[in-house]
Amino acid sequence: MSEFALIERIRARARTDKSVLLGIGDDAAVIQPAPGLALVATTDSLVLDRHFRSDWPAADIGHLAAAVNFSDLAAMAARPRWALLALTLPDADQAWLDGFLEGFLSLCHQFDTCLVGGNLSSGPLNIGVQLLGEVEPGRMTRRGRASPGDWLAVTGTLGDAAAALALGEKASVGLRQRLHRPTPRVAAGQALAEQASAMIDVSDGLLADLVHLLAPGQGAELKLADLPCSDVLEQAMPDLDTRWPLQLTGGNDYELLLTLAPSRLTEAEAACADLGLPITVFGRVNSGGAIECRQADGSLLEMPRGGWDHFDPR
Amino acid sequence: MSEFALIERIRARARTDKSVLLGIGDDAAVIQPAPGLALVATTDSLVLDRHFRSDWPAADIGHLAAAVNFSDLAAMAARPRWALLALTLPDADQAWLDGFLEGFLSLCHQFDTCLVGGNLSSGPLNIGVQLLGEVEPGRMTRRGRASPGDWLAVTGTLGDAAAALALGEKASVGLRQRLHRPTPRVAAGQALAEQASAMIDVSDGLLADLVHLLAPGQGAELKLADLPCSDVLEQAMPDLDTRWPLQLTGGNDYELLLTLAPSRLTEAEAACADLGLPITVFGRVNSGGAIECRQADGSLLEMPRGGWDHFDPR
Repeated sequence: MSEFALIERIRARARTDKSVLLGIGDDAAVIQPAPGLALVATTDSLVLDRHFRSDWPAADIGHLAAAVNFSDLAAMAARPRWALLALTLPDADQAWLDGFLEGFLSLCHQFDTCLVGGNLSSGPLNIGVQLLGEVEPGRMTRRGRASPGDWLAVTGTLGDAAAALALGEKASVGLRQRLHRPTPRVAAGQALAEQASAMIDVSDGLLADLVHLLAPGQGAELKLADLPCSDVLEQAMPDLDTRWPLQLTGGNDYELLLTLAPSRLTEAEAACADLGLPITVFGRVNSGGAIECRQADGSLLEMPRGGWDHFDPR
Repeated sequence: MSEFALIERIRARARTDKSVLLGIGDDAAVIQPAPGLALVATTDSLVLDRHFRSDWPAADIGHLAAAVNFSDLAAMAARPRWALLALTLPDADQAWLDGFLEGFLSLCHQFDTCLVGGNLSSGPLNIGVQLLGEVEPGRMTRRGRASPGDWLAVTGTLGDAAAALALGEKASVGLRQRLHRPTPRVAAGQALAEQASAMIDVSDGLLADLVHLLAPGQGAELKLADLPCSDVLEQAMPDLDTRWPLQLTGGNDYELLLTLAPSRLTEAEAACADLGLPITVFGRVNSGGAIECRQADGSLLEMPRGGWDHFDPR
C-alpha cells in the first residue's frame, strides 16, 4: 500500500465530532476548544523492545500506545478530546495497521476522543502519540503540591504488570492483561480533582513516581502491608519478600498515585466507589526528605533501587 | 546522563510565556488558548537516513525538525504557539542534544513558540515534533478550495533542496543551506490568508503537493519557463532538461504553493513584498483533471513521476 492509501485507511476509521473543524487530510488539524477551559497536551512514544515486543498482537500495541497517553491526562484530571498519531513503520503492513488501529481507536472512542491528524514515515518501528484534553484552569492536579500529613493513596492495585514481565511465559492471563492492556484511570482522575492535593500516574514504578510527586524536601512513610495487591498477584507471588520490591519498583501499572488532606479522604473514597474502583491509603507524606518503607513488624525494608530510566543501562 | 538530567537540560533552555500555565515537568502541559481562536495541531517526525543523515550537524537536524512542523502551520495560515518534542535517542549524548536544541529552540523562539513538554525514550533515533498554533476559525487556508481560473503561485524559489540532494558533495553551500536549514514561510502564510483560495507547503515535491492541493476533478496548466529558480540553482543546473524535472518533483523546499482568484493577485504580491519574499505565478487551475507542464515552445513536457511516498521503494 502507498503512504496515502494507508492514511486514507486511517481516516476512514477515525470518528469526528463538531469540535473538529478540520480532521485528517490537510497540513494540520483545526479544532475548536471549549471557551474558558485550559488545554492539556501530552506526548508519549512506544519503542520496539523497550515498551513492547514484536510478538505482541498489534491491537495490544495500539491499546498500549493510547493508554499511556490517556493515563497522563488522567493524572492532570483532564478530559481527553483529540489525538494525533505519528507512526514510523518498517513497511506498509496493512494487517498490522488494521490491528493496531483496532486497539488504538477502541480506547480513543471509549473516551470520546477524536483522531484528528498525524504522520506516517518509514523506518524502525516507533509509535508517537499526542493527546490533547481540556480542564478547568483551577482544577488541574499538579505534582509537588502535597502538604506534610497528607495521606498517600493509590487507585486499583500495584504490581501486576511488573509480575507479568518478571514471570514471562509463566504469567497468568490476568497478569499479562494488565501489562498489555492497562486501563487508564481517566474517570477517576477527573473525579479526584477536588480531593487530591497532588497526583501522578504510576508508569516508572511506585517509588520513582513518588519521588516526582513530592515537593523538594518532602518525604513519606509507607506501610507495605497496606499496598493494594490483586488476587492474581497474591496467588502468583505469595512471598512478600519477592512481591513488595516488585510492587515498589515495577512500572507499567498506570494507576493514579495521589496525596490527600486527611479531611478529604471520605469524599475521595466515595468518588471512587461511584466508579467501582478501589482507592487505598498506604502511607503519609512528611517533611523528612526520605521515603521509608515499613514492614508489618515495623522494621524498615532496605530500599530497593527505584524506577525506570531510559538511559540507565541496567 | 540520566533521562531526568536530560529533561532538566531541555527545561532549563525552554522559554515560557503567560499562556503556559504548566510547562515541562508534569504529566502533561497545560496551556491557555486565546478566546475565540481555533487551535491548529500538526505532528511530523524525522527518521535517520530518510530525512537526514547521521553526519549532519545536530543543530541542522534540530532546525529541520522544527521547520517542517512550522511549515505545516504556515500552510494553514496559523500562528504557531506551543511545541512538544518526542525524542527517541540511541544514547544519552549530551553534546548531540545541546546541538539539536540549539537548532530546534532557535527556530521556536524566532516564531514566539514555547516548548511546553515532550517525551524521551531510548531506541533508534526518531524525532517527533508536535506543534500547536492558533487561527481565526474563518481564516484557515484549506486544500481543495481553488476555483477553475485561479492562478497557481508559489513563494520563494523551487528546486534548491532537491539539487543539494542530487549533487551531494558537489552542491554549493547555498544549495545545501536550503536542504539543511529550510525557512518555513510562517509570516507569508498568515499574510496570504485573505488572498489564497487554497494553500499547501511543498514538502513532497511540487507536482505531488499540487495533486493534494487541487479538488477532485480539477487540473492545472503550468508554464515551466515561469517556475521561480534561485541564482544558485541556475548556476548549478543551467540545463532546463535537468532542472525542470527536479523543480517539479524534488521535495524539501518548504515554500508555500497556493491558488488565487485573479482579482486577489495584486494584494497577494503586495503582502509578500512587505515581507521581502517573492511570489511567482506559474500556472492556472482548470477543470480538466490533468496537470500539464508546457515548455517555452508550447509543447508538453512528458510528465515525470511525482513526489515522495514513504512506502514506495524507489
